[in-house]
Amino acid sequence: MKLGVINVSDRASAGFYEDLPGKAAVALLEEWVTTPFETAYAVIPDEQSQIEAQLRQFADVENCALILTTGGTGPAVRDVTPEATETVCQKMLPGFGELMRATSLKYVPTAILSRQTAGIRRNALIVNLPGKPKAIRECLEAVFPAIPYCIDLIEGPFIEVDSSKIKIFRPSSP
Amino acid sequence: MKLGVINVSDRASAGFYEDLPGKAAVALLEEWVTTPFETAYAVIPDEQSQIEAQLRQFADVENCALILTTGGTGPAVRDVTPEATETVCQKMLPGFGELMRATSLKYVPTAILSRQTAGIRRNALIVNLPGKPKAIRECLEAVFPAIPYCIDLIEGPFIEVDSSKIKIFRPSSP
Amino acid sequence: MKLGVINVSDRASAGFYEDLPGKAAVALLEEWVTTPFETAYAVIPDEQSQIEAQLRQFADVENCALILTTGGTGPAVRDVTPEATETVCQKMLPGFGELMRATSLKYVPTAILSRQTAGIRRNALIVNLPGKPKAIRECLEAVFPAIPYCIDLIEGPFIEVDSSKIKIFRPSSP
Repeated sequence: MKLGVINVSDRASAGFYEDLPGKAAVALLEEWVTTPFETAYAVIPDEQSQIEAQLRQFADVENCALILTTGGTGPAVRDVTPEATETVCQKMLPGFGELMRATSLKYVPTAILSRQTAGIRRNALIVNLPGKPKAIRECLEAVFPAIPYCIDLIEGPFIEVDSSKIKIFRPSSP
Repeated sequence: MKLGVINVSDRASAGFYEDLPGKAAVALLEEWVTTPFETAYAVIPDEQSQIEAQLRQFADVENCALILTTGGTGPAVRDVTPEATETVCQKMLPGFGELMRATSLKYVPTAILSRQTAGIRRNALIVNLPGKPKAIRECLEAVFPAIPYCIDLIEGPFIEVDSSKIKIFRPSSP
Repeated sequence: MKLGVINVSDRASAGFYEDLPGKAAVALLEEWVTTPFETAYAVIPDEQSQIEAQLRQFADVENCALILTTGGTGPAVRDVTPEATETVCQKMLPGFGELMRATSLKYVPTAILSRQTAGIRRNALIVNLPGKPKAIRECLEAVFPAIPYCIDLIEGPFIEVDSSKIKIFRPSSP
């Protein structure tokens, strides 16, 4: 099984910032997921065509079951991660963005500025996360309980977790 | 007045499953709505063109004021009910999907996987419901209070209900 | 600094109704915003091309940092403010509509019928509000705390408010 993490950031990809958001996302997967997995990892600038190419590469060539992006979801002109995600996905899952924004709203009123979303490309689930490690954890904790079952439904690998760290949910009858 | 129910399910339309979701939706309408109505009813497979044709038939030919679909709203490749709904609607009503997912989230974390939505085609309101009878009731109870007034606004029939069974709401001044 | 308010209403623009929604929106800006500003103001009918032209005029020619619309967000055939908004915006911000509907739901179940949204055109934030003064206040109070920071992110003017009237939020590190 392969899981992908793409840190989308002009400044991190140019080496001005350390790649903390991407590392935070990988650390959460390593903390929670007990099924053995490899990580596909990239740090790229906020260029829509480059984000799309990286998502296609991780979904179609690397066969990642799950691809997490960090950053690039705000209203600024360089924030284009949701547009790239929507372009490469066959199906969008609006409930992810709704729940992540509702969760972040408990902490900051500016949560409504996030355009983060999720969608399906072939057998990969793509989920946009924010750019700050604290918000990455808050958002991924909120939606992760539904992720393994989502990946079952799109015929990806069966993902198991350490239930002392995070609870996931699979309906008993399909 | 005519109300439509379309059960979208490969297995029910092939006769492998009993048509419980469609029957559950009809039973709720019969329990709540006191205005006399006929039911237009169909069980069809998860084929986007067939769902679109059925929605058009119920809206344009049968003149249904309300069309409920059940099933086909998840992330799997055969789940295409929201796509069909969006194709035939002139206006989408995102608040229905948001409230139904928020309601289902009280019961199951996988509620965010539902892509169910609602929209307007001519004088018909189309609402996607989940595929399980228990979830159908939870979702329809959440949004039904707004449905009769919505149908007033799109110039459909005036719908009255048994207020001991469900409360509806019409703002006093339009 | 210039802020725009567009009251979209067939009846107000024809002079049958007093322009209360537009005036209510202006009154809230005057109550809250302490940075000196001029108001660009218009009352126009529910015609999509006219709404689009007015939004472009206020964003591109008048250089409004924020444009509030009132009315035209429901399911009726003449309600086209969200369509006009989506047409002229480069980026949509779904979190605004989600939060405004969730807020209105505390008062009326018919809140889910509102299709109000928000988006970015160049350096202007456009936010759709409902048509009733009471609902305008409820919705704008809910989303306004995020508006000054949003306008920072799209490189508009720095907006300050009377914090005894409304609290706004700017994250400490960008």
